[in-house]
Amino acid sequence: MTVRVAVAGASGYAGGELLRLLVGHPDVEIGALTGNSNAGQRLGSLQPHLVPLAERVLDATSAEVLAGHDVVFLALPHGQSAAVARQLGEDVLVVDMGADFRLTDAADWERFYGSEHAGSWPYGLPELPGARAALEGSKRVAVPGCYPTAVSLALFPAYGAALVEPEAVIVAASGTSGAGKAPKPHLLGSEVMGSMTPYGVGGGHRHTPEMIQNLSAVAGRRVGVSFTPMLAPMPRGILATCSAKARPGVGAADVRAAYEKAYADEPFVHLLPEGQWPATASVYGSNAVQIQVAYDEDAARVIAISAIDNLAKGTAGGAVQSMNIALGLPEGTGLSTIGVAP
Amino acid sequence: MTVRVAVAGASGYAGGELLRLLVGHPDVEIGALTGNSNAGQRLGSLQPHLVPLAERVLDATSAEVLAGHDVVFLALPHGQSAAVARQLGEDVLVVDMGADFRLTDAADWERFYGSEHAGSWPYGLPELPGARAALEGSKRVAVPGCYPTAVSLALFPAYGAALVEPEAVIVAASGTSGAGKAPKPHLLGSEVMGSMTPYGVGGGHRHTPEMIQNLSAVAGRRVGVSFTPMLAPMPRGILATCSAKARPGVGAADVRAAYEKAYADEPFVHLLPEGQWPATASVYGSNAVQIQVAYDEDAARVIAISAIDNLAKGTAGGAVQSMNIALGLPEGTGLSTIGVAP
Amino acid sequence: MTVRVAVAGASGYAGGELLRLLVGHPDVEIGALTGNSNAGQRLGSLQPHLVPLAERVLDATSAEVLAGHDVVFLALPHGQSAAVARQLGEDVLVVDMGADFRLTDAADWERFYGSEHAGSWPYGLPELPGARAALEGSKRVAVPGCYPTAVSLALFPAYGAALVEPEAVIVAASGTSGAGKAPKPHLLGSEVMGSMTPYGVGGGHRHTPEMIQNLSAVAGRRVGVSFTPMLAPMPRGILATCSAKARPGVGAADVRAAYEKAYADEPFVHLLPEGQWPATASVYGSNAVQIQVAYDEDAARVIAISAIDNLAKGTAGGAVQSMNIALGLPEGTGLSTIGVAP
Amino acid sequence: MTVRVAVAGASGYAGGELLRLLVGHPDVEIGALTGNSNAGQRLGSLQPHLVPLAERVLDATSAEVLAGHDVVFLALPHGQSAAVARQLGEDVLVVDMGADFRLTDAADWERFYGSEHAGSWPYGLPELPGARAALEGSKRVAVPGCYPTAVSLALFPAYGAALVEPEAVIVAASGTSGAGKAPKPHLLGSEVMGSMTPYGVGGGHRHTPEMIQNLSAVAGRRVGVSFTPMLAPMPRGILATCSAKARPGVGAADVRAAYEKAYADEPFVHLLPEGQWPATASVYGSNAVQIQVAYDEDAARVIAISAIDNLAKGTAGGAVQSMNIALGLPEGTGLSTIGVAP
Repeated sequence: MTVRVAVAGASGYAGGELLRLLVGHPDVEIGALTGNSNAGQRLGSLQPHLVPLAERVLDATSAEVLAGHDVVFLALPHGQSAAVARQLGEDVLVVDMGADFRLTDAADWERFYGSEHAGSWPYGLPELPGARAALEGSKRVAVPGCYPTAVSLALFPAYGAALVEPEAVIVAASGTSGAGKAPKPHLLGSEVMGSMTPYGVGGGHRHTPEMIQNLSAVAGRRVGVSFTPMLAPMPRGILATCSAKARPGVGAADVRAAYEKAYADEPFVHLLPEGQWPATASVYGSNAVQIQVAYDEDAARVIAISAIDNLAKGTAGGAVQSMNIALGLPEGTGLSTIGVAP
Repeated sequence: MTVRVAVAGASGYAGGELLRLLVGHPDVEIGALTGNSNAGQRLGSLQPHLVPLAERVLDATSAEVLAGHDVVFLALPHGQSAAVARQLGEDVLVVDMGADFRLTDAADWERFYGSEHAGSWPYGLPELPGARAALEGSKRVAVPGCYPTAVSLALFPAYGAALVEPEAVIVAASGTSGAGKAPKPHLLGSEVMGSMTPYGVGGGHRHTPEMIQNLSAVAGRRVGVSFTPMLAPMPRGILATCSAKARPGVGAADVRAAYEKAYADEPFVHLLPEGQWPATASVYGSNAVQIQVAYDEDAARVIAISAIDNLAKGTAGGAVQSMNIALGLPEGTGLSTIGVAP
Repeated sequence: MTVRVAVAGASGYAGGELLRLLVGHPDVEIGALTGNSNAGQRLGSLQPHLVPLAERVLDATSAEVLAGHDVVFLALPHGQSAAVARQLGEDVLVVDMGADFRLTDAADWERFYGSEHAGSWPYGLPELPGARAALEGSKRVAVPGCYPTAVSLALFPAYGAALVEPEAVIVAASGTSGAGKAPKPHLLGSEVMGSMTPYGVGGGHRHTPEMIQNLSAVAGRRVGVSFTPMLAPMPRGILATCSAKARPGVGAADVRAAYEKAYADEPFVHLLPEGQWPATASVYGSNAVQIQVAYDEDAARVIAISAIDNLAKGTAGGAVQSMNIALGLPEGTGLSTIGVAP
Repeated sequence: MTVRVAVAGASGYAGGELLRLLVGHPDVEIGALTGNSNAGQRLGSLQPHLVPLAERVLDATSAEVLAGHDVVFLALPHGQSAAVARQLGEDVLVVDMGADFRLTDAADWERFYGSEHAGSWPYGLPELPGARAALEGSKRVAVPGCYPTAVSLALFPAYGAALVEPEAVIVAASGTSGAGKAPKPHLLGSEVMGSMTPYGVGGGHRHTPEMIQNLSAVAGRRVGVSFTPMLAPMPRGILATCSAKARPGVGAADVRAAYEKAYADEPFVHLLPEGQWPATASVYGSNAVQIQVAYDEDAARVIAISAIDNLAKGTAGGAVQSMNIALGLPEGTGLSTIGVAP
């Protein structure tokens, strides 16, 4: 089976990573590539690492250009996917890498994104309970945000096994590619190298309601989240440190058992042996997730830590994984669990 | 006034940073420099950036060599300061940059360091309530750990004003110099660059009891601490993200007011204007502390974030600041509040 | 066809990168893995990114363990390959990633490596004139050094077309993984980040005679080389800036034409469009080589610049490419031309 | 003596570094600060590390604002200094950190900068023969470019002693701050980290004629220069690798002797002991220059390597050093020879 794939938003970091993966996917043929401000340019000048596609020229994004493909990936700014998706047939698999269809609650969407809610699609985090089944055969996929991917995978086993109280504290460091390719002064290499700095502190980050949605669904009750993101001096990677108060009577063995059970059969999630800690370098460029969990007896808290590549498992890799499931392909096709290290 | 200063442990990162500051201190004359494994070597080959001291040769550490100075700084491995200090006269100002005299509770020391408690000295974090007075005229100073410096400064105003519950959650990223100069595989540049990784998760880090000691003293009750340190891909800097549940009735204005009051007259601590966030690059090489605080209404948590240079304010700068106070010099002599940025 | 492969030296950076590539190679089955000082350890603790091989345990390196494979890769310290290779049958393909069999001249070997010359094997840089043919069907391959790979590819078209004088000046910056995984003080992250520093200046680097050998063979006369290597603050990558005086009458068009001709059909070498410059990030983790060349009319010099990943095309990728040729497999099997960027 | 100083262009990297140094200069009082596009903004939001000046507000650049100071530093884009300087009195010391008054040859200026030549001022590299005397008492100073500073200091002893042929090959790596603070895609942290890339290859870089001017003056004949600059993944620092063919009969001892003589009494230039190599980290934030030189007998070339901080000795530190000389202050006032390392 060969599926013909179009990518809208091929000049950004998410689009570039997606194309890197799709070139290596044995069942994919790459069709139209679009990018509005860069339409007409050679991909080789915009994404010099994508050598096999260097001579491809970007089209302007339009339903006409995207039509006629089996799969359309949308790597567009938030709020632009809905209009495009509406014009694509219901027989086309549309994978939205933006935020538009992630949130089920219209009020959350309106509060955090400031526009009208477009609805929600099956959620592309197959490791969450029930998510894989909803993706099978689906013609629409909402790819999770990068932070919610890291955080949900770190914490859902604890909530699924009712080990922790419904108030999570999350501090996550991200590589700078998560902030995109548009040049801004604070993203200059001169500013970024040698520096750690937080942003969106105090509840304002748009990924917060998505984390709450995922964890609450697993917990069966509303889980509150305090989320502090930080920019780290590295191009890629998220390290999410997540903790919550242990419920009375919970011990270290319960915690370990819950995580071992949750991840016994997940091809991309690796619960590390005790004593070994996740490192973003280990998952660089791969779809792997490293997870470790500890029980702090003094503080009576469960601390779960995950490492992902924000552009791979956190965006484009997750998108390909969900595409594979939706199309009935083996879930790992075209994806690697080996990071480029050191 | 010129004080004659000796430095035991001049070949490590803490000793090197101390010497960088002391060379620029107008009231200091640098005397003996010692380093056990490097005794007999030129400082220029061990610390090539210390150009004015390049031809100085290290002695082996001994009470004889250190005697006859007005001030002796000990930058020795944990557990080695007590023996040396005992041999130095009570008229000599001894500033211990190791952990030996930080903890007041013998049980804490024994649990985390595994040896007999040597006692405790006046604590060299002048910004803490009462600390400055205890340092004035003192002949013994225990320099705080780098993480406890960052965390105590971020959180003590909240505990001092009784704004938050006595359970703090702390996630702090440190530059690699905090791990010292002894070569270990996981500290290689090849491993460190592009990677974030936690360590000492779950309560085991030796700086935890020191944080608890400081915050509990301010709060007037025991404060529990969940502490997760991370190694960040940068040579220097600590970014500490600290949060605690707000007590009932506390609002954003209370929080801001408490921090403004706490830091109104502190020369090295800069509470940033609202909307601006600490960045470790801004304090690189300086004794400055950047602090910002937010109140997350949804999560009902106070989030306080500090940035310091772990080697400067977090170790050697704090040591010089305390020396100045102990000797009756202007507190900021030889210290800068301007980081080397970008 | 499935070939069974053993790797001696699986715990180092070269061995780790080789295994990353071999896991993705469709015709390879990974057999014995050895590592002397780490024998008995799980690979997962030594190479945490190699998830699919995490439970494999290293054997001590011996001919017995390595026997019974179709291909044996040797990623051993210089001088150790010969003894192992001698004990392996002539029907086994032995690919030496060390220096032992690279130099044809015994005097060069003895001068730069200080031991007895073991001989020379077909040289695994297929892009050099005649090299590919020598590799086809060979049972022995000497993988080039990382710097000689970058430099030879940058300069051989100029020497092959007799455009430049036989004195080349080369300055090349390498990522720190080129210095290996043994912990040394100057390779600590704290030392490496934010710093550029040269080493082996003045002709002493062991890769110099290998460059001279390659360029002289193409030029048909002895080419002198002034080589200065530098350590750059990045884990991977080599950027080689190579120049030589243009011969009389040579112009910019001649230079461009020679490089276009040399690389018209090379699958891994990408002569960039004029105005675009190589960047090591573009080839990160890939087997691609980026090359650009300029003619400086004022200085009458040809400046050729190449970017490779020192561990991939510069070591393990080049080794796989040569294995493919030696075994009669398609040359690019299991290799990518797309770097992991940004 | 207190001199009142104005800085035009206070919001950029050069202006920020200058202010960092001026705050610590005991004889300076900081007056007007200007910045066109940022006029009206708090310096604290533009240069968050300059804590003591945080509440200062930028004026628009004009002769009126700059008048009434003893010293005016111009950190303006190339081509804008001449118009401002003309309006400042001849009794004011004007230190131009741009290129406008560096080149003595009008044709060079017009070829490389494309505008009319404004003339030339005493050249602010005191270490060059004759330069210090020309700066003493001068009311105008042209601060050298960062690369020409590094290259001229590396090579002038060799040309001054007639040890090498008049064709120099220079490859220099710079930290990203050299490219300024204006956000451009290729300067994003995501692009810069982990990457080395050249630019301005083949003779086009504007600093080339300045190097030729300096070296030719010392050599007493025209020296040709092949110059290749590279962007390195670090915020600051230049490592310049400079070589030239040795003249017949020259040996290693001649080379060492020439460098020892040239730098015997220079307070900021440190000729390293043999076997130790310059590292940009060692001079981070300082006015120090590290130099080492080697003689490659095989290639018959002299290789001289220098490390500077491009913003400090390469721009703002050099400017302060020249100001000190022009004003008759001790040359090292307010400057350090100790880098912030590690």
